[in-house]
Amino acid sequence: MRLVVVGADGRMGRMLIRAVAEAEGCTLSSAIEREGSAALGQDAGTLAGIGALGVPVTDDPLPAFAATDGVLDFTTPAATTFFAELAAQARIVHVIGTTGLAEPDLAKLAAAARHARLVRSGNMSLGVNLLAGLVRKVAAALGPDYDIEIVEMHHRMKVDAPSGTALLLGEAAAEGRGVALSETRVSTRDGHTGARRPGDIGFATLRGGSVVGDHSVILAGPGERITLSHHAEDRTIFARGAVRAARWAFDRPPGLYGMADVLGL
Amino acid sequence: MRLVVVGADGRMGRMLIRAVAEAEGCTLSSAIEREGSAALGQDAGTLAGIGALGVPVTDDPLPAFAATDGVLDFTTPAATTFFAELAAQARIVHVIGTTGLAEPDLAKLAAAARHARLVRSGNMSLGVNLLAGLVRKVAAALGPDYDIEIVEMHHRMKVDAPSGTALLLGEAAAEGRGVALSETRVSTRDGHTGARRPGDIGFATLRGGSVVGDHSVILAGPGERITLSHHAEDRTIFARGAVRAARWAFDRPPGLYGMADVLGL
Amino acid sequence: MRLVVVGADGRMGRMLIRAVAEAEGCTLSSAIEREGSAALGQDAGTLAGIGALGVPVTDDPLPAFAATDGVLDFTTPAATTFFAELAAQARIVHVIGTTGLAEPDLAKLAAAARHARLVRSGNMSLGVNLLAGLVRKVAAALGPDYDIEIVEMHHRMKVDAPSGTALLLGEAAAEGRGVALSETRVSTRDGHTGARRPGDIGFATLRGGSVVGDHSVILAGPGERITLSHHAEDRTIFARGAVRAARWAFDRPPGLYGMADVLGL
Amino acid sequence: MRLVVVGADGRMGRMLIRAVAEAEGCTLSSAIEREGSAALGQDAGTLAGIGALGVPVTDDPLPAFAATDGVLDFTTPAATTFFAELAAQARIVHVIGTTGLAEPDLAKLAAAARHARLVRSGNMSLGVNLLAGLVRKVAAALGPDYDIEIVEMHHRMKVDAPSGTALLLGEAAAEGRGVALSETRVSTRDGHTGARRPGDIGFATLRGGSVVGDHSVILAGPGERITLSHHAEDRTIFARGAVRAARWAFDRPPGLYGMADVLGL
Repeated sequence: MRLVVVGADGRMGRMLIRAVAEAEGCTLSSAIEREGSAALGQDAGTLAGIGALGVPVTDDPLPAFAATDGVLDFTTPAATTFFAELAAQARIVHVIGTTGLAEPDLAKLAAAARHARLVRSGNMSLGVNLLAGLVRKVAAALGPDYDIEIVEMHHRMKVDAPSGTALLLGEAAAEGRGVALSETRVSTRDGHTGARRPGDIGFATLRGGSVVGDHSVILAGPGERITLSHHAEDRTIFARGAVRAARWAFDRPPGLYGMADVLGL
Repeated sequence: MRLVVVGADGRMGRMLIRAVAEAEGCTLSSAIEREGSAALGQDAGTLAGIGALGVPVTDDPLPAFAATDGVLDFTTPAATTFFAELAAQARIVHVIGTTGLAEPDLAKLAAAARHARLVRSGNMSLGVNLLAGLVRKVAAALGPDYDIEIVEMHHRMKVDAPSGTALLLGEAAAEGRGVALSETRVSTRDGHTGARRPGDIGFATLRGGSVVGDHSVILAGPGERITLSHHAEDRTIFARGAVRAARWAFDRPPGLYGMADVLGL
Repeated sequence: MRLVVVGADGRMGRMLIRAVAEAEGCTLSSAIEREGSAALGQDAGTLAGIGALGVPVTDDPLPAFAATDGVLDFTTPAATTFFAELAAQARIVHVIGTTGLAEPDLAKLAAAARHARLVRSGNMSLGVNLLAGLVRKVAAALGPDYDIEIVEMHHRMKVDAPSGTALLLGEAAAEGRGVALSETRVSTRDGHTGARRPGDIGFATLRGGSVVGDHSVILAGPGERITLSHHAEDRTIFARGAVRAARWAFDRPPGLYGMADVLGL
Repeated sequence: MRLVVVGADGRMGRMLIRAVAEAEGCTLSSAIEREGSAALGQDAGTLAGIGALGVPVTDDPLPAFAATDGVLDFTTPAATTFFAELAAQARIVHVIGTTGLAEPDLAKLAAAARHARLVRSGNMSLGVNLLAGLVRKVAAALGPDYDIEIVEMHHRMKVDAPSGTALLLGEAAAEGRGVALSETRVSTRDGHTGARRPGDIGFATLRGGSVVGDHSVILAGPGERITLSHHAEDRTIFARGAVRAARWAFDRPPGLYGMADVLGL
């Protein structure tokens, strides 16, 4: 399977280049960076620290999308919605790990999914998606006596809160309980808050150092607590998961998929 | 439902007396302690710190078992097998939270279960039994790339290791994987151990302070970890669970049941 | 040493009554509740579940403060400032575990401390105060490459955030770094936050179940993390610490003290 | 400063090569592997994934030690004692991160330290060594009411238990208490153990996945627990620490040093 990496010179971009190079049966067909990037013209493999691959970084996605089977994209909402349109035109696979997408962005992705095969997830790892399944189940099994709290920690450079993964886990908890996350989500506690409102799903955010990504879902009931946690050691789990998603989507009909589809959960 | 508490003057015994007194529709019919105990003749309620219940502690289980619907028992293997025989004669419910039972003890319980309704569990809490279900599921979903480790901590007075609950969680993991715990269990690592044997299920034991009971099951794979934990704040969860088990067993046929049966998991 | 417990019918009040009764050389001289409380007239010991002590609960602090050596107070800011004035008039010890005190309240306590011996702490436990000392030290030793985050969890009924103990730990971290907590404290992260500001001290708050109090201070640097945590199993540690503080203050000159003074840290 | 990396083709060896190349003012003078290694003749930089450094891997340490200022060594006890003798002859710096050294090995290192400057540590990271200082302090401050337990987790390939770092932390705890670790250490709990012996220092070992190294020291007392933890995200912290140790030792007199010396703790 031929794959394009966009945002090739970013931390995730380099990781994706390595994951494509290591995956059996996959080849890197192009590597894209924004106009003016210092990486333009450099070999994508050298950039990723794995020796030259014969693929120079370019800033022109059009020919790249025309000559590939799929795109791996962990960039920004603006770039991702633009790439989704191109992917729809090329009728290829578009794997999206971008976070911070707002409602209008999601509408554009839904439109693109009429022609492209989109796989979008706030977190591409096997472990997190499995954890989400457990959270759904345990939230359904435990009654309202058990309060649900989600805490996450990421590195100091992360610009949004809570993380996409924390929200994904919150969605799973809300689904398990049969409620809407938008009506039960509490992301801020400061000063005189009053007692916890029954049914709330609380989020707490930690930032610091070089933490790749830690998430815990706590179910606190009378006299006991269950905690379900995921700890990411490095970003390779997301890159490997993205390649796995691209392969899975290769022969699927157009549509908007998630990692639960990919993993068959 | 009438209930007898055996080992009435122990820490769990007092907790059970309180749980029976608080449970709607339940009454404490007798409270048993061993011959020579300083608690004999005292009121069981006073002993448990909740005011007199009009039930003096005795050392004679025979009349107590003849005039009750069920027995709550967190004692010792020797006492429990003896009580199981009495419960079988009286054809009542026998809820067993005793730990450290060996094969011959279990054989005696199986014999008693032809006439009594036995509910036995290494841990009577809702949370732990739910966790065991999640462990079974996740152990089945994740392949041999994910190593399973179980760590527990209990107070300094606990005399056996690993805890009954840790073994219960290990059994769940082994079942999920379709292997026998007896063949994969590793409880000791000291000195030159060599690399971890694929498929092993490791146990680690911590003891100290007044810890009621903490258990974690870790699934450690390439680049990520999932951890499923249970934290018990106080023993009331076990006592409440034991009362719940007794009620559930009240109108069941004779047999040997577990908490998964009680909770319908 | 004679001691008065105010707020005698609250959860901490009952705990304090038990701690006084158990402490060698201490006697409960009075137990105070607010006007109209259902506990008025009841025996304080019976209320606390430890058998009658011959001390009926009253709503009149004046005679109680006149005939005692010290007051144990985990109530509300309004009640505490009132009691501090009475303690100053009686020139006795006033141990204050009340949280949520604002600047004007603290000014009143400072005034009272000219005549009374006040010991105030957001957390009376040995462990937390020792932890604060470690946090001060490690924050001083590690440079700005290490980001400091504080996360706490308490039961669902707690009405303020972050906890007094979390702020106490944050003050220790700020002192260690030689900065003001008021200028570095971040208690809210939601939506597009931008990257972490160097030097910030972050707070995250979890609420749920019956959690007595968990606190962690995380120092996250390049490639590694140090985490210093305290876990409270039950409120007896606060009550025992309050009695210890009262005893320590017995023969001290008037003033406003903290637990670091009491523990000689 | 010129530095040799021994065990150049191992995981830590490659890490050390990168750390030397990145450290300002340091150059890799040689890279050593054992006779017959497939890496012999390859460029050490290429091996480490950072581009050629013009230093081919050799199996002859003699000329390498003669033409360098220091050696970075995370190999095996047998190799390390051999290299220490060579380092003594060359009167250079020898930084030793090797674990599993037994008494006779340590005696050989002590002999070598008459001529070489040896820096040996079970863990070269800033965080772990700082943590050891905190453990010493808190173990000294808390009386025998607080039980000390140490738990560690490492990847599935680790062959010894407990880790050198866990033992280093145990030594710190024992020092704080003024006892000998050899007399208080408990590394095995399985079956009927009896109650915890007062004063014991317990070790528990977890193995699995690709965990770089997690360590926690728990002090569990009546009603509360303090936990001091270190989490290593990647091995770069050990390699950077080793380079830092080599630089520190450059102009020191011969002797056997530890990381506490290097960090001035």
